[in-house]
Amino acid sequence: MKSHLLIIKIGGSIIDDESKLSSFLKDFASIEDKKILVHGGGKVATKIGEKLGIESKYVDGRRITDAATIDLVTMVYAGLINKKIVAQLQSFGCNSFGVTGADANLIPAVKRPVKETDYGFVGDIDTENIMGLFWDELLQLGLTPIVSPITHDGKGQLLNTNADTIAQEVAKVMSGSYEVSLIYSFDKAGVLFDVNDESTVINKLNKNYYDELKSNGKLFAGMLPKLDNAFAALNNGVNKVIIGNAEQLKELIAGTSGTTITNE
Amino acid sequence: MKSHLLIIKIGGSIIDDESKLSSFLKDFASIEDKKILVHGGGKVATKIGEKLGIESKYVDGRRITDAATIDLVTMVYAGLINKKIVAQLQSFGCNSFGVTGADANLIPAVKRPVKETDYGFVGDIDTENIMGLFWDELLQLGLTPIVSPITHDGKGQLLNTNADTIAQEVAKVMSGSYEVSLIYSFDKAGVLFDVNDESTVINKLNKNYYDELKSNGKLFAGMLPKLDNAFAALNNGVNKVIIGNAEQLKELIAGTSGTTITNE
Repeated sequence: MKSHLLIIKIGGSIIDDESKLSSFLKDFASIEDKKILVHGGGKVATKIGEKLGIESKYVDGRRITDAATIDLVTMVYAGLINKKIVAQLQSFGCNSFGVTGADANLIPAVKRPVKETDYGFVGDIDTENIMGLFWDELLQLGLTPIVSPITHDGKGQLLNTNADTIAQEVAKVMSGSYEVSLIYSFDKAGVLFDVNDESTVINKLNKNYYDELKSNGKLFAGMLPKLDNAFAALNNGVNKVIIGNAEQLKELIAGTSGTTITNE
Repeated sequence: MKSHLLIIKIGGSIIDDESKLSSFLKDFASIEDKKILVHGGGKVATKIGEKLGIESKYVDGRRITDAATIDLVTMVYAGLINKKIVAQLQSFGCNSFGVTGADANLIPAVKRPVKETDYGFVGDIDTENIMGLFWDELLQLGLTPIVSPITHDGKGQLLNTNADTIAQEVAKVMSGSYEVSLIYSFDKAGVLFDVNDESTVINKLNKNYYDELKSNGKLFAGMLPKLDNAFAALNNGVNKVIIGNAEQLKELIAGTSGTTITNE
């Protein structure tokens, strides 16, 4: 029987809230199963970028990563945020170590080809070349990887990559040797019937129910890509996907909070 | 017989010179023995600090690390510089991964006690608690650690630590299981008879010769702490210490350039 592995993405405003982040990390450290944390960037990169005179540019909600911006996000994501998380987890007894995709070549990527939009130094993950066995060797040493959303092209260039996508691709690869739960934790209570009402969480979702809700127009459009990704992960070996509030990590894992998505 | 391990500190202006750094990293990647790289910070932290309105303060040549400065050096050393080095080394076929002392608790430290000067968030290494066996497990996985000069206190606080000292303390610990050469590479040709004449390199130095030169006032005062540290490392199991120009890394290792310091 495969042992459990939790891959947890933390994002949203909680990264910027020192006290909520600390409380989340304490809960994370107390998880006994093997685990991997993937973090986003929060708003601090934008703030520091403004002070440095680096303008944040977005197309369709995605940051355009020019040369100054890849330096900025490398500093803030892989340096400031990642190492503060690692130091805190060490204080909670979790032997974490922070990585980018360049470290130990954990997440090889290719610079996104320029089509209608030039996203700049953005990396699309080279999924087939993620070395699951090597991730496992690190886990077997008792280490907990803390992943910042920076990858590399193998030719010396760092690249900016969406943290949700990193969590999903690592989850797919690791499902070869583990029973993987993929948890997207953020500042919402889960998938909601009514996006303005946190009490309307859908507790369980499978593909049939999802298709039914979608065809009836009952789901918030902004949530659809996340859900499509969740079902894609399930189709690629991931055991379950859980979406919910980072402040309730233990309850998310127990299935008593948030939305649990399975193939059943 | 113990196998070889090279612990190489790179510092000085070479960190700020993209083309010299790249050439150094290519040489470093081609070393076949197991190896660890420790890097300093260069001038880029000061430059970025100025843009962010963080003033660099020094007492006796040592940076005072206030709360804004520890964030700054964590961003620049552990983020920008460290990850750019890692990405380049990957492109040269060296499976490197970048760490601070907080990652995997590789370098535990204590905040320097306040005496005459309050150095702020500066860490003195807790040498006895460096886990040599764990460093070795990482080396045995085929990984090359790239160490930025940031440590932690185990209570969640990151600390700024001198890179020379990190190289030396890791070298001492690793000498339990390896024949360790400790190389300080920077922008000088080695230990010089005449500090203004790069052609006056002292090729070999042992303790007797050092004491003789020192008592005759023949050595540049600024070099004495580095040399005292070198002999301390030799007395703690390190096999040899080499000091010289980072642009001649291969020659330093071969003993045909720089100053080689041994107990013989």
